[in-house]
Amino acid sequence: MLTSPTLLVNKDISLQNIERMVSKANASKTILRPHFKTHQSAEIGNWFRDFGVDCITVSSVQMAAYFAANGWKDITVAFPVNILEWREIDRLAEKINLNILIENSEVIPFLENKLSHPVGVYIKTDTGYGRTGIDADDFGSFQKILDLLKSSNKLILLGFLAHAGHTYHTKSTIEIKAIMSESISKLLALKTFLRTDFPLLQLSYGDTPSCSIATNFNDIDEIRPGNFVFYDEMQHQLGACSRENIAVALACPVVAKHNERDEIVIHGGAVHLSKESITDKTGNSYFGIVVSIENYTWNVNNIIGKVVKLSQEHGVIKLNKNSTSNINIGDIVAILPTHSCLTANLMKSYLTTTKSEMKTM
Amino acid sequence: MLTSPTLLVNKDISLQNIERMVSKANASKTILRPHFKTHQSAEIGNWFRDFGVDCITVSSVQMAAYFAANGWKDITVAFPVNILEWREIDRLAEKINLNILIENSEVIPFLENKLSHPVGVYIKTDTGYGRTGIDADDFGSFQKILDLLKSSNKLILLGFLAHAGHTYHTKSTIEIKAIMSESISKLLALKTFLRTDFPLLQLSYGDTPSCSIATNFNDIDEIRPGNFVFYDEMQHQLGACSRENIAVALACPVVAKHNERDEIVIHGGAVHLSKESITDKTGNSYFGIVVSIENYTWNVNNIIGKVVKLSQEHGVIKLNKNSTSNINIGDIVAILPTHSCLTANLMKSYLTTTKSEMKTM
Repeated sequence: MLTSPTLLVNKDISLQNIERMVSKANASKTILRPHFKTHQSAEIGNWFRDFGVDCITVSSVQMAAYFAANGWKDITVAFPVNILEWREIDRLAEKINLNILIENSEVIPFLENKLSHPVGVYIKTDTGYGRTGIDADDFGSFQKILDLLKSSNKLILLGFLAHAGHTYHTKSTIEIKAIMSESISKLLALKTFLRTDFPLLQLSYGDTPSCSIATNFNDIDEIRPGNFVFYDEMQHQLGACSRENIAVALACPVVAKHNERDEIVIHGGAVHLSKESITDKTGNSYFGIVVSIENYTWNVNNIIGKVVKLSQEHGVIKLNKNSTSNINIGDIVAILPTHSCLTANLMKSYLTTTKSEMKTM
Repeated sequence: MLTSPTLLVNKDISLQNIERMVSKANASKTILRPHFKTHQSAEIGNWFRDFGVDCITVSSVQMAAYFAANGWKDITVAFPVNILEWREIDRLAEKINLNILIENSEVIPFLENKLSHPVGVYIKTDTGYGRTGIDADDFGSFQKILDLLKSSNKLILLGFLAHAGHTYHTKSTIEIKAIMSESISKLLALKTFLRTDFPLLQLSYGDTPSCSIATNFNDIDEIRPGNFVFYDEMQHQLGACSRENIAVALACPVVAKHNERDEIVIHGGAVHLSKESITDKTGNSYFGIVVSIENYTWNVNNIIGKVVKLSQEHGVIKLNKNSTSNINIGDIVAILPTHSCLTANLMKSYLTTTKSEMKTM
């Protein structure tokens, strides 16, 4: 019986999400290297293995170590290399195919000097997001880094890696397609510019919105979406999925009712959902969509309201007008989270809708 | 050596924060029942015991169980009672003095029927925050609940409990003082109205901004601030503390530099700091203040910049103009977090500035 905030996962929906992405990647002969920061779970990782996935992406060296210990042999840490962790990197590189990201030339002599085992290297490439990476138009900086890598014995150049995170700031799927198309053009231009000296460079491209909306990945060697294993309300708002595709929901007990303002209070706050919010068309923020749940299965067709305020442990739900009288203290409601990666990271465990428990790292 | 995001705590600063609040409570003969949701750590809990603190506040039944297992015998769960957890409540009430919060009358017959052991009850009172509780002016609703409690053998009425969380939306300490004064007036009016039937009702009052700024607690029986054990940038902005009083900082490795836009990238993101932000006077949001650090000790007088963007694991820091050239990849910087409670909840462990490790629950 559910008595406290519990992160439910519907394995069937998740498997469908995985299968859809695998099929699309296979049809384009593109490698799917899914980002495992979303679920951080060895058991959910195995769901991918059953579809033939054998290489993955993670966001930290610690996460790479966890999945390596769980049998993954080919891992990219899609994060600018933290040189202070060179010992852990070297230890992992001894056991598995480990790839890292480089975007500043000064780390190259440092790592060349410290590492005993070869690691694969992608140059982090900024195709317009403006967070990390070398500006894709700045051919000179790429040339400089590539020339340094040419003479390296430990750092094996693999190609360019981009994450078009600006797809998360779009208002339509047309904008997302335009960003993807522009990003890939930039990566191809870079590849063309450098092909005389480096004929074998690969292109690795990320982000769930782009990869969900794209019909093919013909120009890309590898894709790295992560969130699609669960999806969430943000992806739904971006047009990357339907609410039926969302594979996780946070089950929360109702602890108070305020009929006069059409609100209920749940045990389910910032320490469960995270403070990630979505701003709706009227300029109001919300932290999740509230739906009904029965026998561990939520119903996206019965929307009860929105989570409009979050404290550390409290969630305040503004109910739809017709929902107030149907909900009582002691009931359970289900929240489709704004950002499933952050919710999973906070909850640290899952309960499948068929009641088996799984932990994160 | 620090190589990955690490939550540092300066025990001396924390002890000073505790001592200051204890002295002020003692001077007013008010009970200090500190909220332990901030640190969630048995070891940090012991720091309070050394100052004579013997009763505490928590935000969930699970947290009550953790601190009860660590020797605390008098615990208030300052959260509208989750009746689905009546078994855990009953188990705890057998062992310790457990207090719960009630704000809806329908839970009273339910608990009266289920519980075998008496629990203390506070009526959650809304003095203007508008999140949970009965409106303090709605004397009729209080009378109704109190009449139900009168005939109860398991639910022992203790008094009214208020959390003036609207102090967090203020722009000056004058506003905070005004909210506190209005809240206490409301609680006193309620007490006066009900004193014929219930002469012994206690007033319990919360929130760190009010309790930090108040000079005395003469009209209140008990205070429940929590955040003051660490403080944070939000409390500093509210005028509840100085930056010198902040007892925690997140040490983060620098992983990339972007001189052309005065930015560095750190390993330190939403899974470390939380997405809680502060909006500055120019309307821009930030997620923490960045200061220098040497030998595990940060320096609030050397502000390097602000965390302006957060992804799951990345933090983007906008540097002050004169800081760019002094920072290199592989350096460690320290972040004064926006909201130390959420950061501690995410990090799950502390390292003191004298290098001893402590875990949260």
